[in-house]
Amino acid sequence: YRTPVTEDFAEGYPSDEEWHGYINNNDRVLLKVIHYSSSTSAGAECIDPNCTWVEQWVHRAGPREKIYFKPEEVKAAIVTCGGLCPGLNDVIRQIVITLEIYGVKNIVGIPFGYRGFSDKGLVEMPLSRKVVQNIHLSGGSLLGVSRGGPSVSDIVTSMEERGINMLFVLGGNGTHAGANAIHDECGKRKLKVAVVGVPKTIDNDILLMDKTFGFDTAVEEAQRAINSAYIEAHSAYHGIGVVKLMGRSSGFIAMQSSLASGQVDICLIPEVPFNLHGPHGVLRHLKYLIETKGSAVVCVAEGAGQNLVEKTNATDASGNIVLGDIGVRIQQETKKYFKEIGIPADVKYIDPTYMIRACRANASDGILCTVLGQNAVHGAFAGYSGITVGICNTHYVYFPIPEVISHPREVDPNSRMWHRCLTSTGQPDFI
Amino acid sequence: YRTPVTEDFAEGYPSDEEWHGYINNNDRVLLKVIHYSSSTSAGAECIDPNCTWVEQWVHRAGPREKIYFKPEEVKAAIVTCGGLCPGLNDVIRQIVITLEIYGVKNIVGIPFGYRGFSDKGLVEMPLSRKVVQNIHLSGGSLLGVSRGGPSVSDIVTSMEERGINMLFVLGGNGTHAGANAIHDECGKRKLKVAVVGVPKTIDNDILLMDKTFGFDTAVEEAQRAINSAYIEAHSAYHGIGVVKLMGRSSGFIAMQSSLASGQVDICLIPEVPFNLHGPHGVLRHLKYLIETKGSAVVCVAEGAGQNLVEKTNATDASGNIVLGDIGVRIQQETKKYFKEIGIPADVKYIDPTYMIRACRANASDGILCTVLGQNAVHGAFAGYSGITVGICNTHYVYFPIPEVISHPREVDPNSRMWHRCLTSTGQPDFI
Amino acid sequence: YRTPVTEDFAEGYPSDEEWHGYINNNDRVLLKVIHYSSSTSAGAECIDPNCTWVEQWVHRAGPREKIYFKPEEVKAAIVTCGGLCPGLNDVIRQIVITLEIYGVKNIVGIPFGYRGFSDKGLVEMPLSRKVVQNIHLSGGSLLGVSRGGPSVSDIVTSMEERGINMLFVLGGNGTHAGANAIHDECGKRKLKVAVVGVPKTIDNDILLMDKTFGFDTAVEEAQRAINSAYIEAHSAYHGIGVVKLMGRSSGFIAMQSSLASGQVDICLIPEVPFNLHGPHGVLRHLKYLIETKGSAVVCVAEGAGQNLVEKTNATDASGNIVLGDIGVRIQQETKKYFKEIGIPADVKYIDPTYMIRACRANASDGILCTVLGQNAVHGAFAGYSGITVGICNTHYVYFPIPEVISHPREVDPNSRMWHRCLTSTGQPDFI
Amino acid sequence: YRTPVTEDFAEGYPSDEEWHGYINNNDRVLLKVIHYSSSTSAGAECIDPNCTWVEQWVHRAGPREKIYFKPEEVKAAIVTCGGLCPGLNDVIRQIVITLEIYGVKNIVGIPFGYRGFSDKGLVEMPLSRKVVQNIHLSGGSLLGVSRGGPSVSDIVTSMEERGINMLFVLGGNGTHAGANAIHDECGKRKLKVAVVGVPKTIDNDILLMDKTFGFDTAVEEAQRAINSAYIEAHSAYHGIGVVKLMGRSSGFIAMQSSLASGQVDICLIPEVPFNLHGPHGVLRHLKYLIETKGSAVVCVAEGAGQNLVEKTNATDASGNIVLGDIGVRIQQETKKYFKEIGIPADVKYIDPTYMIRACRANASDGILCTVLGQNAVHGAFAGYSGITVGICNTHYVYFPIPEVISHPREVDPNSRMWHRCLTSTGQPDFI
Repeated sequence: YRTPVTEDFAEGYPSDEEWHGYINNNDRVLLKVIHYSSSTSAGAECIDPNCTWVEQWVHRAGPREKIYFKPEEVKAAIVTCGGLCPGLNDVIRQIVITLEIYGVKNIVGIPFGYRGFSDKGLVEMPLSRKVVQNIHLSGGSLLGVSRGGPSVSDIVTSMEERGINMLFVLGGNGTHAGANAIHDECGKRKLKVAVVGVPKTIDNDILLMDKTFGFDTAVEEAQRAINSAYIEAHSAYHGIGVVKLMGRSSGFIAMQSSLASGQVDICLIPEVPFNLHGPHGVLRHLKYLIETKGSAVVCVAEGAGQNLVEKTNATDASGNIVLGDIGVRIQQETKKYFKEIGIPADVKYIDPTYMIRACRANASDGILCTVLGQNAVHGAFAGYSGITVGICNTHYVYFPIPEVISHPREVDPNSRMWHRCLTSTGQPDFI
Repeated sequence: YRTPVTEDFAEGYPSDEEWHGYINNNDRVLLKVIHYSSSTSAGAECIDPNCTWVEQWVHRAGPREKIYFKPEEVKAAIVTCGGLCPGLNDVIRQIVITLEIYGVKNIVGIPFGYRGFSDKGLVEMPLSRKVVQNIHLSGGSLLGVSRGGPSVSDIVTSMEERGINMLFVLGGNGTHAGANAIHDECGKRKLKVAVVGVPKTIDNDILLMDKTFGFDTAVEEAQRAINSAYIEAHSAYHGIGVVKLMGRSSGFIAMQSSLASGQVDICLIPEVPFNLHGPHGVLRHLKYLIETKGSAVVCVAEGAGQNLVEKTNATDASGNIVLGDIGVRIQQETKKYFKEIGIPADVKYIDPTYMIRACRANASDGILCTVLGQNAVHGAFAGYSGITVGICNTHYVYFPIPEVISHPREVDPNSRMWHRCLTSTGQPDFI
Repeated sequence: YRTPVTEDFAEGYPSDEEWHGYINNNDRVLLKVIHYSSSTSAGAECIDPNCTWVEQWVHRAGPREKIYFKPEEVKAAIVTCGGLCPGLNDVIRQIVITLEIYGVKNIVGIPFGYRGFSDKGLVEMPLSRKVVQNIHLSGGSLLGVSRGGPSVSDIVTSMEERGINMLFVLGGNGTHAGANAIHDECGKRKLKVAVVGVPKTIDNDILLMDKTFGFDTAVEEAQRAINSAYIEAHSAYHGIGVVKLMGRSSGFIAMQSSLASGQVDICLIPEVPFNLHGPHGVLRHLKYLIETKGSAVVCVAEGAGQNLVEKTNATDASGNIVLGDIGVRIQQETKKYFKEIGIPADVKYIDPTYMIRACRANASDGILCTVLGQNAVHGAFAGYSGITVGICNTHYVYFPIPEVISHPREVDPNSRMWHRCLTSTGQPDFI
Repeated sequence: YRTPVTEDFAEGYPSDEEWHGYINNNDRVLLKVIHYSSSTSAGAECIDPNCTWVEQWVHRAGPREKIYFKPEEVKAAIVTCGGLCPGLNDVIRQIVITLEIYGVKNIVGIPFGYRGFSDKGLVEMPLSRKVVQNIHLSGGSLLGVSRGGPSVSDIVTSMEERGINMLFVLGGNGTHAGANAIHDECGKRKLKVAVVGVPKTIDNDILLMDKTFGFDTAVEEAQRAINSAYIEAHSAYHGIGVVKLMGRSSGFIAMQSSLASGQVDICLIPEVPFNLHGPHGVLRHLKYLIETKGSAVVCVAEGAGQNLVEKTNATDASGNIVLGDIGVRIQQETKKYFKEIGIPADVKYIDPTYMIRACRANASDGILCTVLGQNAVHGAFAGYSGITVGICNTHYVYFPIPEVISHPREVDPNSRMWHRCLTSTGQPDFI
């Protein structure tokens, strides 16, 4: 792993903004901050038998003294792709406000994701501080979201026609791959365009980042669902509450929500295999819980146990495989199991997904979105392209897009955080 | 309809409580307070062509100067039946506190509904102010709930064995029928027992009452789900949000929640038939909404359109027919319809039922529960049995149980409230 | 007391709106619905020794088949006066929406209360469904509020100049007095103008109405403050929490909030005198509570105990006397008292007033506001003027303004509701 | 600055707990993770002209394979000192649960801070999983808090008499100083006692830590107050809302809350001096805001501008100087100023302090508290004493107490975060 270097443009354009403090182009932030003294330490990531610690640095985000675009020549566009995530409006708002502080007057929103570049009938939305002033007070996306869209080539052509030379892309792994391809295509066409991503994944599954925006709000809102499941389970005779949370390939939301609640008995995530049936299966443990505690709460990530549900070959417009429904599966198998063993059980199933996605950002995410939005603009004006912004060890940094999307970030089953979750739930291995 | 008269016991027991103000046994509250001048007036309920207004009075609830039980001889029991409803703990708490103020020391909770009278292994829970002090701060039922249970005869025998001479029953129509049968059986056995109901139906479907506890909280919490559907629909390209709310045979929650939100385009309730297909069907109107507004929100009561879903013959332990899922049906038919007509549509379905039921009572319901709980105890001490407590034209009253459970209370399609809802949604007739 | 009769205009204008159901002009709603059998019954209001019940009827609100204005000739104005109250935006929104349904195109908002009729620089705000669509999602008033303003004569002259022939006034007692004077002045000038009030008083102190909008939300939000005081008091050594709530001359908010919370030990309202010092004083009871329970929570209405604070002769722009601060007074006297008797006490004072006033309406108030707003427009089109809308025994009615503002509605110390509050707090008389 | 080394005890006691993963005693976490390339970089902290980056490591927190106490010989005590802070109950709960997992059976709570070691009449509270199961669902402290207390010598004597050999202390700087003194005194008396702190300061003013528990919740809850001030200010004619937030010597809450809200025009903190009067003063800027925007919102930390309020020499029981009230001062001066310049202004003042302190922890703080509580116990069993637990660059670590309490952590006026706040408010320098 190398320090990510995006070409620092040789000739900048002097800013006349009165910034209170600039970031030096050579400021760096450390990527790895734990020195594991042994490969047997919990969560150890080692490159050699001695677990030698290696310095790895990334670019610090923030405003530069020299800027690469004349603000009056900028036409900036913002596009939001994929599904909803708390904080989209906060990021949009802050990008617009920061662009205006730089002096940019021509700012537009592309409606409904990349699709807005091609669909006739979808027109650019002019954006200004006045338009965005209070949009962060409600959830969703002012610009609308959607999956899929035209080819990279068509997008760049559309950008050329519209005169867009600064593009801010909010989306997940797939969207970022698209953003990077747009950046490459602009390079091929020798266009002076800055393409900057802001990672949007409620699942928190982007590599190298402390967390992505919306995740904190999701964990907060998930508490309602878990507490409802707990209340339903504890008020029923042999009650079992099952909550399905987001997390296609990583279980961060389920893990953190379980830890925060202190009310979950079984937490199931995609990274940790489990059996439903058999002597070590989830159902046997549920029987034990019902017999000893009288009730139980299960929290399962949507992508968990995909070997236990029927395969589907369907994909959505983003190309994601449509997952089998593990939540419904657990509900059904649990009912069946308790019926078979002749013990009454009252199983309630809760899927709060859309009620979580549609929330406005909480204060913590509000700050994260604000700083990411500001830094996305700083990055574009600093002349970076093909980058995305993130928070790393509490500091804000720029990453080249390819380095954070090679695969989804996952929960390490050997990490302290997963162990803390197991300590909290008291669950055994289910294999 | 006759003024409900429950026998006022001849010989009372003088209370030594220092009540600040007693209710006179002959105080009455009016049942019908609108004089319709014509049978064509909106919502008119007329008994003759002139729509003559008739005085109908019910017993006013509250503490009596003479009480029928010696507090030191009372063993009071509380039982909660059916499904969860916000406010159960508030009512339990207030019954206990008020019993203690009367001087009752022997108070128990029957666990898990009527089942707690028969199941071995389920033991009475001793109750006191200390136990119940803060239970209203969380949802659910301290005592646990369940459906079904032993025969009336077995229940009364169990009460005799336990020495229970005051029984407070929290439940819906079926539970109240049971309570009345218990009252009758006690009469047959010449037991001096007071059986008092507190109507618990989140659907608000008990006759003659302004509202039942938990309903207001349900409407409040439903706003989250509706707003999520609205945000999802408005942020998606051709987004349609479908929210299913409680309401087996009456649409009060769906109607009031739609009115409160101002964000619903189509409200469907059991009392008003509708077609999905055809020139006047819901789907055609959805097409119109997508074409004109770009998005739409549908709010449907669970018992609506049962002619449109597959019949099930299954019943739950309460004897309720398991309903076909109209929410899922609408979601599926909508997807199919838009696919057929070649217009993209993004349909999201939200079922917040358990998250609403498990809430703690809001302030308004907290007050309602407090006063119902107090009055249930006042009624028992006043010597009433086979009654239930309610709020009628903003005043608290006692009803003989049979008069309020002959059938579920329903939304009148000719009422002003339903018309207000139609005005708010702007929806046409779907027939 | 007479049935309020507002002149029914002889010649109406036939509506071509397709209303689903009209109100007959002669429909009436009963005002008094309890028959007290004796003057000693709790809360009895009697006109003779036998406490004879007398029928008193008021006009039922709602749409009429004949309307008195041609919609295309209407210029409607809305003005919001006094302080903030949850629900203002809901009422504004619904008036606009209902006017548009009638076909009115010329709708304006007068900025910052009556002041907006006279201040240069304050311009009318054009209103339409599009403008008001989502304003109910935030608190405050879209139009702005203020106290005071120009003379009635100047207001009517301004209305004439602007061509306003329908005026909707949202405000309290004083504002309604102004609205009635405007109505009278229009009569004198023989202007065909409808002036309709919507009572806005968070204190719930308008005569003859079940409740006013914003009150329910205020009681809900007050729970936060009371619970904070409870937590602070219970977590401190000899902790005493004092919460001051709204209620200049009536204690409805303090009473209902105390009842709802179940956490208040002492509730003090303007209608019930009390001493701080002396053997029966509040402080002596606090000592008792600290010695027996270890902590105490006091909830005091701002207008309570005005004999105990220094008189001020100051008045605000509405002409209200600036009250001495009883909350601060109780805090100071409590600290002093416990210091004098040598018992440590940790007193915390909370004033949540502005945080309550600025809330958006909860669902229950949202419905109330919606129906009041609709009925205000129905009333104006029916040709009523000098009236206000209200809810009476759960039904919506019109009152002539003078009948509801002769004096503020107050808590009856002999009412059941106050007795319930005393039962809940367990407090003695403080005289 | 040196790597903090607390003596690793030579002879451990082998744990028979089945931990999923142990921390190696030599694992370390980096303290400083930014390499500033120049002393002119925003927020640069440099030790030499080249701003050389130096590795500084701290001990990684977590369970060790060898433990220093036999669980059956442990008597653990928990004490909570100072004022309330969201999360106290979460930390108490998790310490108890983790101690039980280690096998400790003798766990007690010391009531009302250090005072509980000396006051007769205050008795130890036995703690177990059953007692603490749901305490995190409400705010406050199960054990009670207070300031002050007996001498260190008396505390240690009391501990000896009670047989306490593990003490967990939750409190701020002063409390930690006390904890360290207790640790030292135990050393002098050669007692084998582990004293472990958990930093509790809602102000977030402990050195070297990313954040302290309760801070995130405080920023979240402060949003209500700020939004109320915004609504009041925007709905009033020339409205000015002033919100005072916590922050005696550091402005983190005010700064982060302003950033999160996006609704604050002026943020005032203790670290940045300001004038009220004069050409660059706050009042002049308020005049500008009223003239240009029509309203303004001010957010001030309680410790800001102490040169502008009357000095008090009073101190509270913790020895903190009682601050002059800058919030009230700004309110009064603002009213006076606008009166003098003849421009009407409507100033509303909100102090939400107690409503924020008494909240339960949000999900993010819930996780933080859970992990801190677990690690406090791991630290004690690992044989550390005189340490405190914290989060550093997203990882959990142990610090020797003296290194984190030498002075309160403060906002750096040259930091990016303060600059982001200024960018968000748009405020000038007020000097």
